[in-house]
Amino acid sequence: MERFPFNSSLDQTRDGEPIEAIGEFGLIARLTHSLETRPDVVLGVGDDAALLDVGPDMLLVATCDAQVEGRHFLASVATPQEIGHKTLAVNASDIAAMGAEPLWALISLLLPAHMKTARLDGIYEGIRSLGRRLGVAIVGGNVSSTDGPLTLDMTLLGRVARGRACTRSGGHPGDRLVMTGTLGAAAAGVLAFAPGRDMAAYVRCAPDVLEQARVSLVAPMPRITEGRALGATGVVSAMLDISDGLAADLGHLCAASGVGAIVEAAALPIDAAASAIAAAYGRDPLDLALGGGEEYELLFSVPPAALDTALDAVRLAGGAAHVIGELTEAQEGMQLRLENDTLRPLEPRGWDHLR
Amino acid sequence: MERFPFNSSLDQTRDGEPIEAIGEFGLIARLTHSLETRPDVVLGVGDDAALLDVGPDMLLVATCDAQVEGRHFLASVATPQEIGHKTLAVNASDIAAMGAEPLWALISLLLPAHMKTARLDGIYEGIRSLGRRLGVAIVGGNVSSTDGPLTLDMTLLGRVARGRACTRSGGHPGDRLVMTGTLGAAAAGVLAFAPGRDMAAYVRCAPDVLEQARVSLVAPMPRITEGRALGATGVVSAMLDISDGLAADLGHLCAASGVGAIVEAAALPIDAAASAIAAAYGRDPLDLALGGGEEYELLFSVPPAALDTALDAVRLAGGAAHVIGELTEAQEGMQLRLENDTLRPLEPRGWDHLR
Repeated sequence: MERFPFNSSLDQTRDGEPIEAIGEFGLIARLTHSLETRPDVVLGVGDDAALLDVGPDMLLVATCDAQVEGRHFLASVATPQEIGHKTLAVNASDIAAMGAEPLWALISLLLPAHMKTARLDGIYEGIRSLGRRLGVAIVGGNVSSTDGPLTLDMTLLGRVARGRACTRSGGHPGDRLVMTGTLGAAAAGVLAFAPGRDMAAYVRCAPDVLEQARVSLVAPMPRITEGRALGATGVVSAMLDISDGLAADLGHLCAASGVGAIVEAAALPIDAAASAIAAAYGRDPLDLALGGGEEYELLFSVPPAALDTALDAVRLAGGAAHVIGELTEAQEGMQLRLENDTLRPLEPRGWDHLR
Repeated sequence: MERFPFNSSLDQTRDGEPIEAIGEFGLIARLTHSLETRPDVVLGVGDDAALLDVGPDMLLVATCDAQVEGRHFLASVATPQEIGHKTLAVNASDIAAMGAEPLWALISLLLPAHMKTARLDGIYEGIRSLGRRLGVAIVGGNVSSTDGPLTLDMTLLGRVARGRACTRSGGHPGDRLVMTGTLGAAAAGVLAFAPGRDMAAYVRCAPDVLEQARVSLVAPMPRITEGRALGATGVVSAMLDISDGLAADLGHLCAASGVGAIVEAAALPIDAAASAIAAAYGRDPLDLALGGGEEYELLFSVPPAALDTALDAVRLAGGAAHVIGELTEAQEGMQLRLENDTLRPLEPRGWDHLR
């Protein structure tokens, strides 16, 4: 019927591998290879957030992250308020990982047409409640309908004093490796609450332990105060947040800094709920601690002489910090020292959002 | 099976009206009612972009907009390059409408798992090609998989000199109403290329006319140079971009400025392709010009004494500008003066992304 082939150039859309075959990090590398830049882009794609030159004293910090129903949250596990909370929390965690202060959020909503307004009200209540706590204002957004899942896509902007931003790339061999908080609770939450969970194991867990794991998974608290305090010290050599899992994110830090690392298994601050749930599910808590994503703790490196300065900064900010290992020469790769003093390779495996 | 009711508070997700019942603007009003703010938020939700205080000379400008497959673009009508182009163009148009310069983009991708990498490469090529032309760098992003449609969600940041930003709210009765470019071609593109189109009418149109309408729809050119030139004059009293349709966007300008408006039908710069396609489809070109969305021209008001300054600015920027009416007192509402000199009410109707 059509009289001219207006879409003759469209066939290429069938070409190439499916994106799931190359995975999240392969895809990002492909899309961001030799991107054009500008002189005012201090740091572009590849860290927790971009650093942008907006004046003599401060850098603008910008990041974005989406929460997709069925992938990042489930209505049967998280309340609307918790879904909203997490949407802001995961973005704020990236700002924290730069040592920066979050300021302004833009929210893009992709809404199934039959979604009820009350659910969205609850989600906004969750965003606004955490926003009040962090001093973040919602300044813009967009709404579109979709035939797909409810999706909450946020861009969060912040600022950091020039010279005080913490990137992934400044770590040196010999630097101590430190993290805030504990590990494994969010991964235990996935074990206990994900579809297809083992209900026999579930009922062996105490209710308060399950609730602790659930809250860790669906309503993480971004380490803003700790991150800003660490940035202000000026002693942190590299930092990121643990969103893909400790091993994977340590891999990102090592790759960006050109270093290796040794992690001490005995030093890992494994969450009590994670240990209890791992026991019920017959899993090694160490696996949850190393491979679970969604932790949203900060992982950073600091020269040994400045370790106390960094630990004090976290403590004064009301947080907990644990030394979990140190950076090594790159050729040593990533290793895990077990409690029996043997070393085993530590695979930088974790969450891949496309697989 | 479950031992404790961890999700007892989740039932509220069933409450309330469906969002489609209250529509895009009702929903935005509901979600943004009494939002918390900060002293450094110069302008928050409600204009084309937010204005944020980042230093003594410049304001940061921030906007976001999503392109959803099947809603905002179709693979059978737009090439991957055009889809990428439009993703940046619609955001850049919002920056232009503030009289600002676009600088930095963050792209959040929601990807069906089986999507082919070559298609995404093409989309990025389109974004990058327009980015080079506008001087925009991609500085961040996010990838997630989705069971829903391919969605490209962009946040675009820019800057404008303090005191030179053009908002929707400064129009006064007596100001002349001016727009860049022409109207109706994108709406004609929808007539000719949307699913369910009238193929008998389609084949009555000349191929070059169809292609002109298609390109207007899928690859609009944001009026950055014109917008920046207008902002720099300091004489524009109100400005926005025509993304929802002339009547709807004029309604936004009138509501924000507290004014009414008279539009002269004879003065509307109706695109030649729009007229030709309207004729083939038996539609009034005036309806396409008033009610079609996706035009991405700039609509602005300027005091009569400064009209020549504004018109010269657009001309020097290489653009076209047409005086299409003037602002009136609010109680006169929005009116259309027909060619026979009669006035009829102009309904501020246009595109609603949720209906």
